[in-house]
Amino acid sequence: MSSDPSSSAAPASPQTPAGPVPGFHAVVPAGGAGTRLWPLSRAGHPKFLHDLTGSGRTLLQATVDRLVPLAGPHGVLVVTGHRHADAVAAQVPALVDGPAGGPARLLAEPSPRDSMAAIGLAAAVLLERHGEDVVLGSFAADQVIVGTEAFERAVREGVVAARAGYVVTVGIRATGPSTAFGYVRSGAPLGLDGAPSVLHAQGFTEKPDEETAAAYLATGEYRWNAGMFLVRARVLLDHLATQLPALAEGLRTIAAAWDGPDRDAVLETTWPTLTKIAIDHAIAEPVAAAGGVAVVPGDFTWDDVGDFASLGGLLGSPTLGDDALVLRVDAPDALVVPGAGRTVSVVGVPDAVVVDTPDALLVTTRAHAQQVKAAVDGWRGRGRDDLL
Amino acid sequence: MSSDPSSSAAPASPQTPAGPVPGFHAVVPAGGAGTRLWPLSRAGHPKFLHDLTGSGRTLLQATVDRLVPLAGPHGVLVVTGHRHADAVAAQVPALVDGPAGGPARLLAEPSPRDSMAAIGLAAAVLLERHGEDVVLGSFAADQVIVGTEAFERAVREGVVAARAGYVVTVGIRATGPSTAFGYVRSGAPLGLDGAPSVLHAQGFTEKPDEETAAAYLATGEYRWNAGMFLVRARVLLDHLATQLPALAEGLRTIAAAWDGPDRDAVLETTWPTLTKIAIDHAIAEPVAAAGGVAVVPGDFTWDDVGDFASLGGLLGSPTLGDDALVLRVDAPDALVVPGAGRTVSVVGVPDAVVVDTPDALLVTTRAHAQQVKAAVDGWRGRGRDDLL
Repeated sequence: MSSDPSSSAAPASPQTPAGPVPGFHAVVPAGGAGTRLWPLSRAGHPKFLHDLTGSGRTLLQATVDRLVPLAGPHGVLVVTGHRHADAVAAQVPALVDGPAGGPARLLAEPSPRDSMAAIGLAAAVLLERHGEDVVLGSFAADQVIVGTEAFERAVREGVVAARAGYVVTVGIRATGPSTAFGYVRSGAPLGLDGAPSVLHAQGFTEKPDEETAAAYLATGEYRWNAGMFLVRARVLLDHLATQLPALAEGLRTIAAAWDGPDRDAVLETTWPTLTKIAIDHAIAEPVAAAGGVAVVPGDFTWDDVGDFASLGGLLGSPTLGDDALVLRVDAPDALVVPGAGRTVSVVGVPDAVVVDTPDALLVTTRAHAQQVKAAVDGWRGRGRDDLL
Repeated sequence: MSSDPSSSAAPASPQTPAGPVPGFHAVVPAGGAGTRLWPLSRAGHPKFLHDLTGSGRTLLQATVDRLVPLAGPHGVLVVTGHRHADAVAAQVPALVDGPAGGPARLLAEPSPRDSMAAIGLAAAVLLERHGEDVVLGSFAADQVIVGTEAFERAVREGVVAARAGYVVTVGIRATGPSTAFGYVRSGAPLGLDGAPSVLHAQGFTEKPDEETAAAYLATGEYRWNAGMFLVRARVLLDHLATQLPALAEGLRTIAAAWDGPDRDAVLETTWPTLTKIAIDHAIAEPVAAAGGVAVVPGDFTWDDVGDFASLGGLLGSPTLGDDALVLRVDAPDALVVPGAGRTVSVVGVPDAVVVDTPDALLVTTRAHAQQVKAAVDGWRGRGRDDLL
């Protein structure tokens, strides 16, 4: 810890939460098609590239905005697919041409190899660039968070626990027995200085049915697993070397070449060999079973905007776009996305969801929001990949 | 009756239904905005100009097609508004340039003055052109009829009753206690040779509530009033002279000038003075009260395509247009009009009505079909007359 910059910069305790956390780097995996938000979200223009909340910022931009105060203006790194790299760079130019110069903080994957490869690559590159003291936090690009202060407090405490060697997950205070999210079960407090609310994690669960979810909440021990992780880069890669040594070695090889002339050649030979696995299965679950995972409670409003019902709940107005184009008759809460410049009239369908785009129109209801995927499958089955 | 051409031409009895009915002229009032079929039907392109049944013919064309066998190739006359005259002529060129030449059978009204002026003008012009023996039948341009033989039989019997001096209305056999139509109540048979099924009419009713409608049907005396009338032109104009002498005189003046050089001048001064009134109120009701109206039963399928629920019932498929553009998930009967070339996906709204046009999209349900007018009113209230 001799080179820990926190000794010469602002301390990272929750009592003095102002300023970036020294040594902390935010990693933003920007992937996922957002199929249940089709036709707003498309494979070629997925949901993280959209301003889904009408805030004027896309989900990706809002995610970066939220992390800059914690990681500093050059402390956010985005990992995305090759086909989306240009769009990401256009939305967040600082990733590639920040005032300080230096290597780009936009990592483009040649092909999707799931979240362990994406986050592991970021960890390995950060370790190469910044040394052993890097703590990384991973935050998906397509989540919506309301409550910046509570979010920052959780991250600052999480970093303390990560420095102590834990894999730290953020457990969101559940507002109801959701069946759309997985849960993390917490145990006794860690008792760390500067991280008073962090608890031991007892384990993770998949998405439960409603009865099970209600039983979880009744115990007071369960929180939503938002898929956010904080961990020292070295700790993450050591765990990976234990669990999946070939994957760890592949990532180390790629990272060593990343900022040199051989990046493309090494990616071409090595990337396709990486094991496709989610970080939850690769690291979080086995390490939790061994007592190495902690939970930092997150008392902020969080949503992964998984479908149009979820989106409708996030919007201040039931129109996402120009409300002058929308007319509702006996349908005051109909969710309308007038995305093609045409007028949209909804008569007598209070629960309606109408998403209008230049080539595809979707009509459904909030109650059927989870079935939108079937429409995507239907068009794929008809060979209309141009719509997906 | 000395010049009755029926004595020297094919007899018009129902026993020999082939060939045009001598002296019979069909009048087609082509008006009405079809507001409840918005945005398919627009003020500038109303429903009669549309192929609403997917038959390949517009409602207007299908109406003319249905009447030519009865009235002959030069026996159909259309009355429409000035702004629709070009579109009508384009759809039915024979109205203005039939092989026999002669004056155009397309009468363009300078402004809407309701159905009495429209049909009265046609009657007066036909009287000028063809003399005292003209029997006219009036059939709106925006109705759908299935069952040509039964329709022809009714018209042929109706002409016999019209020649006998009656105002004859067609009473459609009701398929249920509809609250969307007015009813005509029938009495004893007229007992006319060649018109065995024609009955005295006891009177007309406005659209009833459902209980009243059911009570009507239980008597066996009530039929739907389809707004079709058959009457000698002279009889119609004589009734009009009695009921509304100024209107009758105005129409006579206009008709006398119609086929000469003064038409436009006379229209300009006289047309705006004509009383605005429906033929039902001007003629049918008072004459029925005096015993001068007859009912010819029409045992064919009839619909006035008043709204999208009605339209949905007429279509063989729930798509009006290219079915390759439509995907339904848990919504097998959703009525979709893919009128903008874009794909339409309906997920989980079995009752849906989705009408897609280049500038306006409507989403509603069959149950709310009658409320579509409120959307039109809403856009008018916002000053979007371009959409109406």
